[in-house]
Amino acid sequence: MAGKTFAGNFFEDFRVGQVIHHATPRTVTSGDVALYTALYGTRFAVASSDELARAIGLPQAPVDDLLAFHVVFGKTVPDVSLNAVANLGYANGRFGVPVYPGDTLTTVSTVTGLKENSNGRTGVVYVNSVGTNQRGETVLDYTRWVMVNKRDASAPAPEPVVPDLPEAVHADALTLPDGLDLTGYDTRLAGSEFRWGDYEVGERIDHVDGMTIEEAEHQLATRLYQNTAKVHFDQHAANAGRFQRRLIYGGHIISLARALSFNGLANAFRVLAINAGSHANPTFAGDTIYAYSEVLDRIELPGRTDAGALRVRLVATKDHPAGDFPLKGEDGRYDPAVVLDLDLTLALPR
Amino acid sequence: MAGKTFAGNFFEDFRVGQVIHHATPRTVTSGDVALYTALYGTRFAVASSDELARAIGLPQAPVDDLLAFHVVFGKTVPDVSLNAVANLGYANGRFGVPVYPGDTLTTVSTVTGLKENSNGRTGVVYVNSVGTNQRGETVLDYTRWVMVNKRDASAPAPEPVVPDLPEAVHADALTLPDGLDLTGYDTRLAGSEFRWGDYEVGERIDHVDGMTIEEAEHQLATRLYQNTAKVHFDQHAANAGRFQRRLIYGGHIISLARALSFNGLANAFRVLAINAGSHANPTFAGDTIYAYSEVLDRIELPGRTDAGALRVRLVATKDHPAGDFPLKGEDGRYDPAVVLDLDLTLALPR
Amino acid sequence: MAGKTFAGNFFEDFRVGQVIHHATPRTVTSGDVALYTALYGTRFAVASSDELARAIGLPQAPVDDLLAFHVVFGKTVPDVSLNAVANLGYANGRFGVPVYPGDTLTTVSTVTGLKENSNGRTGVVYVNSVGTNQRGETVLDYTRWVMVNKRDASAPAPEPVVPDLPEAVHADALTLPDGLDLTGYDTRLAGSEFRWGDYEVGERIDHVDGMTIEEAEHQLATRLYQNTAKVHFDQHAANAGRFQRRLIYGGHIISLARALSFNGLANAFRVLAINAGSHANPTFAGDTIYAYSEVLDRIELPGRTDAGALRVRLVATKDHPAGDFPLKGEDGRYDPAVVLDLDLTLALPR
Repeated sequence: MAGKTFAGNFFEDFRVGQVIHHATPRTVTSGDVALYTALYGTRFAVASSDELARAIGLPQAPVDDLLAFHVVFGKTVPDVSLNAVANLGYANGRFGVPVYPGDTLTTVSTVTGLKENSNGRTGVVYVNSVGTNQRGETVLDYTRWVMVNKRDASAPAPEPVVPDLPEAVHADALTLPDGLDLTGYDTRLAGSEFRWGDYEVGERIDHVDGMTIEEAEHQLATRLYQNTAKVHFDQHAANAGRFQRRLIYGGHIISLARALSFNGLANAFRVLAINAGSHANPTFAGDTIYAYSEVLDRIELPGRTDAGALRVRLVATKDHPAGDFPLKGEDGRYDPAVVLDLDLTLALPR
Repeated sequence: MAGKTFAGNFFEDFRVGQVIHHATPRTVTSGDVALYTALYGTRFAVASSDELARAIGLPQAPVDDLLAFHVVFGKTVPDVSLNAVANLGYANGRFGVPVYPGDTLTTVSTVTGLKENSNGRTGVVYVNSVGTNQRGETVLDYTRWVMVNKRDASAPAPEPVVPDLPEAVHADALTLPDGLDLTGYDTRLAGSEFRWGDYEVGERIDHVDGMTIEEAEHQLATRLYQNTAKVHFDQHAANAGRFQRRLIYGGHIISLARALSFNGLANAFRVLAINAGSHANPTFAGDTIYAYSEVLDRIELPGRTDAGALRVRLVATKDHPAGDFPLKGEDGRYDPAVVLDLDLTLALPR
Repeated sequence: MAGKTFAGNFFEDFRVGQVIHHATPRTVTSGDVALYTALYGTRFAVASSDELARAIGLPQAPVDDLLAFHVVFGKTVPDVSLNAVANLGYANGRFGVPVYPGDTLTTVSTVTGLKENSNGRTGVVYVNSVGTNQRGETVLDYTRWVMVNKRDASAPAPEPVVPDLPEAVHADALTLPDGLDLTGYDTRLAGSEFRWGDYEVGERIDHVDGMTIEEAEHQLATRLYQNTAKVHFDQHAANAGRFQRRLIYGGHIISLARALSFNGLANAFRVLAINAGSHANPTFAGDTIYAYSEVLDRIELPGRTDAGALRVRLVATKDHPAGDFPLKGEDGRYDPAVVLDLDLTLALPR
């Protein structure tokens, strides 16, 4: 009568090179797309309209890139972060083939780094996760690192290994969907006249709008992604915890910020890369989220005259309109109003 | 480095005759239908069952008419009503071809009237909006008028133009779907034995049931329709406003009232027209919505012996069961409990 | 001008042998599936992945069995339980052919028992309800009994009839989907190595995780099922009632408990039978639900070497982690923390 319940992995359970085949393959449908729209109000036209998607060479409207991200991410939670103290960062995230309704996603992860913390009670686990569709095509390949509890503080520390990760995904590693041809892209229907060449490095855009989060919303979202981290769902347990509140899944903030960024980046129709990301402060129900973007780089895409890429810092704030562009204080620490500092590479029509 | 964010149009930005091609075409799917059901609990059988729809000559269950309305309406918000003080009224709304899952809707509006208010700070904009599907067929054609802020109170007033609008859509302008044949309509499966001929002009029906609105619900709904009006979403900004609350999108109340009206009008399977409508009082999360209907007219549909139309006043109340049929006081002002006064024309089997 | 509103049936309106054709046939779609996932976070792999479903001989991922249950159940509410005081129990529930997106469900019920209570004001109605798809195939056949108000306490009591119901569905009455072949079942993708033979009678499993319920969530769920019982939706009326709260639909707790049971019963991919069930205590928004299972029986399925059945007691608690396995006190009454005591038969791969 062995214990049938899986309590998640602890720091000692991970080995560099270990490959984890995550459970619960997930067929993504137009139902998920509708819920995603209802949760964030996203308006990027290529993902909103089959007609517009076909006009640029796609078979139909692809699923929002971040919905694909959340589904791929969600699979990893039971194995990687059920005992996580914090989700520390993301790097080298590259989106592959688009996900369409009907595709089934699975995720396989490889442990690429381990580093015990000096307190001896926790350690950092680096995981490279690859989401694939039913044809084995990669839809997303990214690395994240999380702080994970040790089961036993007296367990010996492993040899520290920290993977070599790029500061940002290189232009050569950015991929656009096969068949994409933006000559048929309609900026009027997309909601903005501003194309790739209209943005300048250093330019900052206040996305203006704010969105207040309700408990039901973030719970619906996080369950939709089959992300099982209990801190998001269990108020009874939270009552005895540090915040006395359910924590909002960081990815929920990512999606809110991306949806808000439509107002200023309406033609950034595709996320090509997640270069880096930090959940600067926790968020809770009742928080109102705002966002701004800063253009970090303008990137030519090899062989493309119809599309270019912008590297953008997307920052989300809470209960603080983003027009004064808060980020970090003189001490180098995040402003208390900042909840997300995300480094994305986005595709736009030229 | 031009401003990339669109702040919406102000009163001075509109010209009579101006045509606005709204952004964000939207493919409506069975996912939207499921969410619509979850948001309102609607039970009209033709929209609930592919089998029943086929039995009356339709290819499959059409999308709820009001879901189509909200999607068509939502497109207009960024251009028409982002700076609106109030949504004043609707007129001459005619539903065209049904919307089916997979259809992609776009909206084009024409400014048909302008009238500055005597205070010089706001004006009324009349907009005729036409929603079409991917084949260019009209799914909805309606006029609404909104009070919009001026950017600059000193800007000169335009020549006042007020469009000529019918009190109600004429029977000749009401359309039923091609191929519809109600001889196969099953009143038992539809939930009521009462057909068109069973209703009398002047008859009032208390729809009995009540539905309490949660913040998460109206936010999910309003985002589903890609309606971006910030008063619905931003509690932080609302804290400094008139109500200290997020306002509920008026269309959410319309859909709630229509869903509640099933109990008494179960065979009113199709909205043919929105003749007029007024959001009599604002609504907020926590309000419980009730509804009643009054039959205003019984209309023969040209050339149809299987279907007839009822013109119905659909009234919604808050925190006040509708059995005493409140409407207006002796001063002609709406009863404080009344939140919606909507004039619809509905199709029923004969 | 007859009353058009249906106020539901009272105890006197039921006759043993009466057949009720319930209204509102319902086409179930992938949109419903997405919402179901968002509401409960269910992770059973066969219902999550078209690919995995095909690998075991099904045409695609079937709809969660309990979503089918709720839709079939929801149809019965306007006729059977609109005036119900309490939903007393379930028995002899057998799931038939799986439900797939696109199927249209209807429900027909037969009154199989009537027994007036000694107070003369209420009575118990036994109803056998059969849900069928568009091909007339049975998807679910179950009995429930509810306590229903009398319209008139002086109405004479009917001859008491109580149907003969099995304590549990017999193995011969359990059916697996046509074409199912579990030799291709992948336990790694399903999330657990534990097969049918790994469970022992008497074994108890704490499902560990907790889920706090929000008003918006249970309302969305209950409306999705077109369940119209007003106690779930009308806070204004509830303010004058016994609890001053909206009651959560008992089926919402069933689905939550089932989803939580994944952690410990991940391979229980199919509900074969609902043998019995009791909503031991009411639940309200804010309650955190936990669950545990006790294996009651291990059943060989006739003619199958690839699958077996477990009879399991699935117990849900509120605001009380389930690790101490509460059930009943010495007085035989349910522990106040217990909200659901459900007796299921589940299919697992051998």
